[in-house]
Amino acid sequence: MAGSHLDSVPDGGAFDGPLGVVSAFAAIDLLRGRGLTPVRPLGVVAFVEEEGARFGVACLGSRLLTGVIAPDAARALTDSAGLCLADAMSGAGLDPDGIGPDPGLLASIEAYVELHIEQGSALDGLGAAVGIAQSIWPHGRWRLDFTGRADHAGTTRLADRRDPMLPYAATVLAARKAAYRFGALTTFGKVVAEPGGANAICTAVHAWLDARAPDETSLSKMVSRVIAAAEGSATEHGVQVTIWCESFTPVVDFDLDLRDRVAAALAERGIDAPVLPTGAGHDAGVLAARLPTAMLFVRNPSGVSHSPAEHAEPADCAAGVRALAAVLEELACR
Amino acid sequence: MAGSHLDSVPDGGAFDGPLGVVSAFAAIDLLRGRGLTPVRPLGVVAFVEEEGARFGVACLGSRLLTGVIAPDAARALTDSAGLCLADAMSGAGLDPDGIGPDPGLLASIEAYVELHIEQGSALDGLGAAVGIAQSIWPHGRWRLDFTGRADHAGTTRLADRRDPMLPYAATVLAARKAAYRFGALTTFGKVVAEPGGANAICTAVHAWLDARAPDETSLSKMVSRVIAAAEGSATEHGVQVTIWCESFTPVVDFDLDLRDRVAAALAERGIDAPVLPTGAGHDAGVLAARLPTAMLFVRNPSGVSHSPAEHAEPADCAAGVRALAAVLEELACR
Repeated sequence: MAGSHLDSVPDGGAFDGPLGVVSAFAAIDLLRGRGLTPVRPLGVVAFVEEEGARFGVACLGSRLLTGVIAPDAARALTDSAGLCLADAMSGAGLDPDGIGPDPGLLASIEAYVELHIEQGSALDGLGAAVGIAQSIWPHGRWRLDFTGRADHAGTTRLADRRDPMLPYAATVLAARKAAYRFGALTTFGKVVAEPGGANAICTAVHAWLDARAPDETSLSKMVSRVIAAAEGSATEHGVQVTIWCESFTPVVDFDLDLRDRVAAALAERGIDAPVLPTGAGHDAGVLAARLPTAMLFVRNPSGVSHSPAEHAEPADCAAGVRALAAVLEELACR
Repeated sequence: MAGSHLDSVPDGGAFDGPLGVVSAFAAIDLLRGRGLTPVRPLGVVAFVEEEGARFGVACLGSRLLTGVIAPDAARALTDSAGLCLADAMSGAGLDPDGIGPDPGLLASIEAYVELHIEQGSALDGLGAAVGIAQSIWPHGRWRLDFTGRADHAGTTRLADRRDPMLPYAATVLAARKAAYRFGALTTFGKVVAEPGGANAICTAVHAWLDARAPDETSLSKMVSRVIAAAEGSATEHGVQVTIWCESFTPVVDFDLDLRDRVAAALAERGIDAPVLPTGAGHDAGVLAARLPTAMLFVRNPSGVSHSPAEHAEPADCAAGVRALAAVLEELACR
């Protein structure tokens, strides 16, 4: 099975980019053009909600397939408009009862390979067009709800305020400090002020912490430090804070045997592909718990990701397709 | 002319509270019941967009009437959906060309009195049902746009980030510190993270500072301090920051002669009404620059405002109506 993913395509949108699911089909076309016939079946998959942008849980499709999230829990997930997944599916003409793990399908898959643009500039630094994934950092998403008291911005004395924006701000700065301390990453990219009037103290501030570290012990210690800072600052300002983990993905070490086969298949065709760790989550990381998976990266000279500036040169995209074709030939045609 | 305002009524909603425009009509009913006939005309006004919640400029109606904001500038104001005031008016069947200052109308008004719930607990502390406004603190609203670079939360090294959330957070804490320093008030009640994805560094963070102080020098010094903190922290994080003043209202000292007449009219009827300053902006404050204005406050035992907890007892609302009737009798019936 081969998957690929283009970050800049919105969830549910068409895959129209060079690194979309089209690259998997391009690799298959390449094999066909060479007159190769698979000796075992080859499937192409596009998983839904890989970013978790709408329903909050990243890699929702692969989590459902592998049973990491229960179908009932998934159906009850709601988007920012309050619509639950079950109703969203029904509205789109899909059957929400049809979701859930498929052990038979999983058992029938020998290997899963995902092609992805690199979400950093390591390949660019090494002068290589493609790379092979070594591991994915453990990572998770925590939601923090700071609840204070709505009040007038012009008449409420500082001493009488219970302003949730203040402990939120202190937590943002504490999270960055903790990331430095543990050689890790923390991000607050989403925050919602409620009710969000310019001349009123907020009732509540809802915030999401994205945290990733090289190992699970560091991640756990770092997040504990951020939580302690949030709770301490909330108490200082008379604010309540509730914190819970929305999603967590343990460290993923990609299958060593499969990685060696991938590396050998590329080397055989003269493709230089360095081995890299990554901090980004992927469907391949979720599937790795159930079957051998591997990932290929394509050079990203911008070094940025989750941004309109994310970019791959056409020549590198073609190199990615050739690399994926080489791997598919090794896994399915021999 | 008599105005009144109930903060908890959304802009454009019906005035259905005891301190809505109905209290002005209740006061007029009281005068009618006593068989009193005005010797000069009495008008009741409900100004639009007093909070500035939709188009960003507080007291938009009274600012337009007095020419504090130019009609062209007002028509171009946009709401959060990108709809401009002119189009919103046309859509509601109103003529956007009809807005603007009305010097003839203003010249014909001898006095304007506004009844409002107190937005603090001073009257409650003094054991009085009604009070008289002395002055309004100078206050304003500043918009801060922090622009960084969108990037992946899981793959971008801390050193490579240009995350606008960090200088925003530092500015929130610096603003609170500055408020303590100047015996003043600062609030960040509205913040918008763009694009606002939990697993992506923001492109931009848009924030609004509400600042008020006992005098204009303190306000100016305090805001300069907040701006310096925002600029310093933005530079530190490789982020651009643009700051501008969206609205500013100078200190308002209500007309002394009118205040004395109001106080005498209340005292004559045995109504004890202490004189209070306020940090809140009001249409009366905008009109004060053009004609004699006065304000009456009604006790608010909750002490809070711009909050669902804002509350006045029915007996105190009735006392407010009696006080307003006494003032209208003094100003219009003698």
